[in-house]
Amino acid sequence: MKLIRFGAEGQEKPGVQLNDGTRIDVSAFGQDYTEAFFGGDGVERLSNWLKENQASCPTVSDTIRLGAPLCRPSKIVCVGLNYAKHAEESGMAIPTEPVLFFKATSAIVGPNDDVIIPKNSTKTDWEVELAVVIGKKASYVSEENALDHVAGYVLHNDYSEREFQLEKEGQWVKGKSCDTFAPIGPFIVTTDEIKNPNNLDLWLSLNGEKIQNSNTSDFVFNIQEVVSYISQYMTLLPGDIISTGTPFGVGLGFNPPKYLKPGDVVELGIEGLGTSKQTALAYKG
Amino acid sequence: MKLIRFGAEGQEKPGVQLNDGTRIDVSAFGQDYTEAFFGGDGVERLSNWLKENQASCPTVSDTIRLGAPLCRPSKIVCVGLNYAKHAEESGMAIPTEPVLFFKATSAIVGPNDDVIIPKNSTKTDWEVELAVVIGKKASYVSEENALDHVAGYVLHNDYSEREFQLEKEGQWVKGKSCDTFAPIGPFIVTTDEIKNPNNLDLWLSLNGEKIQNSNTSDFVFNIQEVVSYISQYMTLLPGDIISTGTPFGVGLGFNPPKYLKPGDVVELGIEGLGTSKQTALAYKG
Repeated sequence: MKLIRFGAEGQEKPGVQLNDGTRIDVSAFGQDYTEAFFGGDGVERLSNWLKENQASCPTVSDTIRLGAPLCRPSKIVCVGLNYAKHAEESGMAIPTEPVLFFKATSAIVGPNDDVIIPKNSTKTDWEVELAVVIGKKASYVSEENALDHVAGYVLHNDYSEREFQLEKEGQWVKGKSCDTFAPIGPFIVTTDEIKNPNNLDLWLSLNGEKIQNSNTSDFVFNIQEVVSYISQYMTLLPGDIISTGTPFGVGLGFNPPKYLKPGDVVELGIEGLGTSKQTALAYKG
Repeated sequence: MKLIRFGAEGQEKPGVQLNDGTRIDVSAFGQDYTEAFFGGDGVERLSNWLKENQASCPTVSDTIRLGAPLCRPSKIVCVGLNYAKHAEESGMAIPTEPVLFFKATSAIVGPNDDVIIPKNSTKTDWEVELAVVIGKKASYVSEENALDHVAGYVLHNDYSEREFQLEKEGQWVKGKSCDTFAPIGPFIVTTDEIKNPNNLDLWLSLNGEKIQNSNTSDFVFNIQEVVSYISQYMTLLPGDIISTGTPFGVGLGFNPPKYLKPGDVVELGIEGLGTSKQTALAYKG
């Protein structure tokens, strides 16, 4: 199943994208894609509900805005330097265990919303990433059981301001949490539709030129390892997002580095998880 | 006003602690202490409502558990090394701008709940901190206007696992986000009752011995500076928590270091913000 949310910002309704691309409004199911939905077997309940009710669900026009395909989660946990060649381009060592940081959930926007270059930013960068949506509370789970705690997968652009992240005092969170820095979607694909999340092509293009192009088989730590590892340090709640790191090809890695200017267009995609597109705009106070 | 929440974990109801110490149930007000409450002038509305309704509010027994005095916020932003002498004991330089990190909101518990020493932890440490509760959305606010965005202040123990935080690869969040690592409360004191948040005594004792003892006037960056600074990098939402750093006297700073063992009792307090008490327990899988 492909879960979407659609409508104006802050007023999104839950929907489903069918295999033929048609989008339907499932508001009548009675529950949005919240922690309670994911934690309460919502994916299964919705799937069963659709068997009886799909025909009566209104169609959603292709022109309607997509929001992020889930309600605000309790946290976004990001894995840093999880592709060897990206660690190299960042001038950092390949980690021996997952590097973790958080991204503020207030940064979440829809997949095709504009990305706002923050005030005083000259180093706004892109990062195509596969994100995991937690389906069942995870605390101290083993690698063997880790995927049982996953509801689905979703495309994420982990926008990053490199000066804020790397040249300011302290931790990376400063460069990861600006408003609009987490476009998520177009849809969450439930696990039954993804044969192997550790073997998916992913790419990103800037103004039509493909500059990130890799496969999740290049992960330093695969999804089972990452979910299990994080759950040793904190409890992952249903609906929580884990963003699994970006491959080679971010702006920081170019010589000289290449960062977003107003008007730039970023497009990205992951095999089976659809595509998204953001236009960069200058901050207007 | 002093906002409390009381009742069993996950079933807390909103209340108010009166100046004589009596606790009353304000469920009849019809709104818990959520983002919508703080962002919708809830403090003022509740205060007005109480003028008419206080007499009919049920009293809450002193023996009932206190929960954290607000619903789960979108984020907990922490300021690191914000007291000079603590930076020194941590072997780190006094920062020239605020060091920021996040703590998972899944770590939040009531002020007197047990603190669970995580599995495989040998370095669980304490940190008494003044926490700020945001009252109004804050994005790019000036220091002059920063306090207009604050709803109140609350006591927080920023528990930290030093091996997870400092000896693992990557960012501090790993040692800050374990379950029960954020006891918050007893109550949020609204800003009208705190003359100067940058001049409050704070202390922490371990098994009856006072080992942290300072005043928020020792802040490297005061509350106005911190709120304004954070708002340059992310949007603070109503109900969000900023924890402003801990003074000298954490376990890491002792020679040899001193960390929590099962049965240890931690008590802490801040002038005007009450006290809390946690007993350390071993993790039981």
